[in-house]
Amino acid sequence: MATYETEIRVRFGDIDRAGIVYYPRISHYCHVALEEFFRDRVGIPYHEVIDGRRLGFPAVHLEADYRERLEFGERARVRIDILRIGRSSHVTRYRILREKTGNVCVETRITTACVDMETFRPVPLPDDIRAVLEAHLADEST
Amino acid sequence: MATYETEIRVRFGDIDRAGIVYYPRISHYCHVALEEFFRDRVGIPYHEVIDGRRLGFPAVHLEADYRERLEFGERARVRIDILRIGRSSHVTRYRILREKTGNVCVETRITTACVDMETFRPVPLPDDIRAVLEAHLADEST
Amino acid sequence: MATYETEIRVRFGDIDRAGIVYYPRISHYCHVALEEFFRDRVGIPYHEVIDGRRLGFPAVHLEADYRERLEFGERARVRIDILRIGRSSHVTRYRILREKTGNVCVETRITTACVDMETFRPVPLPDDIRAVLEAHLADEST
Amino acid sequence: MATYETEIRVRFGDIDRAGIVYYPRISHYCHVALEEFFRDRVGIPYHEVIDGRRLGFPAVHLEADYRERLEFGERARVRIDILRIGRSSHVTRYRILREKTGNVCVETRITTACVDMETFRPVPLPDDIRAVLEAHLADEST
Repeated sequence: MATYETEIRVRFGDIDRAGIVYYPRISHYCHVALEEFFRDRVGIPYHEVIDGRRLGFPAVHLEADYRERLEFGERARVRIDILRIGRSSHVTRYRILREKTGNVCVETRITTACVDMETFRPVPLPDDIRAVLEAHLADEST
Repeated sequence: MATYETEIRVRFGDIDRAGIVYYPRISHYCHVALEEFFRDRVGIPYHEVIDGRRLGFPAVHLEADYRERLEFGERARVRIDILRIGRSSHVTRYRILREKTGNVCVETRITTACVDMETFRPVPLPDDIRAVLEAHLADEST
Repeated sequence: MATYETEIRVRFGDIDRAGIVYYPRISHYCHVALEEFFRDRVGIPYHEVIDGRRLGFPAVHLEADYRERLEFGERARVRIDILRIGRSSHVTRYRILREKTGNVCVETRITTACVDMETFRPVPLPDDIRAVLEAHLADEST
Repeated sequence: MATYETEIRVRFGDIDRAGIVYYPRISHYCHVALEEFFRDRVGIPYHEVIDGRRLGFPAVHLEADYRERLEFGERARVRIDILRIGRSSHVTRYRILREKTGNVCVETRITTACVDMETFRPVPLPDDIRAVLEAHLADEST
C-alpha cells in the first residue's frame, strides 16, 4: 500500500485578496502532484500519456475539504493515494500537509474518467496504469 | 425564490493541454460569479465586504460534478442559488449552463464560512447578507 | 483611425500577496481584450481564427510600463490600437485605463507574428485581418 | 559575477489553446524564480521581505523576447542576473533555457522599484539586498 508524496510551495501569485491561497489554486496543486505521480510512479510523463497513448483523465467529480488555510511562502506536501478503481474511472485522494505541523490542510477526492482523447469517451484503464493505481490503493479511513 | 445569473466567456488562457477548460478555472468562474452576485444582489461590492465590513467567505467544502466539457470561445451562464443557510455558513450552488444548449455543464456546491478577517474565526452572518441569501434559497431538487 | 475599447474588472483571484494585481495577470487582461477585438472588429471569433483559418498570433516581443497599480474590484478599460504592421507581424498597443480617473495605469506593446498553426512558421497577414489592423493604426505619440 | 539558476517545469495548466505556454505564465515563471533567488541568495524568504521588512518589489517596466515556444512537460532553467542597479530600482534579467538544447527560449528584463509596502513609494535598496544584487551584476552582452 504505497503512498506518493511530492512537494509544493505556495507562490506569491497563488495568494488572493484575502491573503490566503486562492482556493482554485489548490486544485492546480493537486494536478501538479498528479503530473509528478505519473512521471515517478506510472513511469510515463503525463504529456506522453496524452500524446502517445491518446488518453486523458478529466475530472468528473470533485470533493474538497478546506480545513486550514495556506499562506505565501509555505512549503507543503501533497500525498496521493487511490481510494477506488473502476473499469474506466478511479478516485484519487490528495491530502495537502503543511510541512511545519504535518496537519492535513486540505483533502481533495477527485474521480477521473479514463477517456480516449479523440472521442472523449470512456475507455478501460490500461493494464499498466491500473497496476500502478492498485499499488497505491488505500482505505478511506487511513 | 430568486435566481441569479451572470455570463462568463471561456478564454484562450483557460484552456489546458487537453484542449478543454482546465478544471481549476471552473472554480475561478464560480468565484467571479460570486463577486458579481455580491455587487448586484447584496449591493456591496465584494472588496468592500472584505475591507469595510472585515468579513471573508472562505470555502470550507466543495463538491463539483463535471458533466460536459467547456471549450474555448464558448459563452456560458453561471446560475447561483443558495441551498442551505446556517448560523455562520451557507451552501451556494453554481450551475454553469452552456449558452447554445442550456445544458448544465458543471454543478458546484460550495460551503463557505463567514469569518472575521482579523481572526479568520466564524462569525454570524450579518442580517443584511442573510436576508439576500434567504431570498435566493432553492430546493436542491430544482 | 479607430480605437477599440473593452472593459475588464479586477478579480479577487487576480490579486497577489502585495495586495495589487499580480503583473502576469495584466498580460492576461490584454489577451482577453485581444479576443474581444477579434470578435468585434475582425468579425471572426479568435477560436475560429485558430481552428478554421489555422492561424496563430504568438507574442514575439513585449514591452510594458506599469505606472499605477490596479486593485481588487476596480473596473478598467483596455484600449487597443495598432502601432505598426509588417508583412506577417504587427505591434498592438494596449492601454489599461482606470475608470475612475481615466489614467493609463499600464501600457503594453506586443509584437505578434502571424503563424501557420501546423508549422508555427510566419505567414503573411491575411488581407481581411490586415485591413482591420490598418483601420486601427495609430501614431505612437497619441 | 555570480549567476543564479532554478528549475521550472511546464505544467498541464500552463498551456493555452494554441498548445504552447500561455505567455503570461512566462512572467509567472520569472516571479517564481525571483522568489527562489530571494530565499537562496538574499537569504530572506520573499514573504519575510514583504511582511518583516515591509518592502515590495513591483515591476515598473518589462521587456520580453519570446524566441522559442515552450511545451507541456518540458523542464527548463530560469537563469537570473542583474543588469543595472539604481538607488531604489534595479533591472533583473531572466533567461529561460530549455533543458534539452540549452537554448534561451525567452529573455525577460524587468525593472523593479523597491517600495515601502505601506506607502508604495520608492525607498533606497537596503544595503544587504543591494550587496546581493551587486554580486550578480552581469554585462548585457554576456
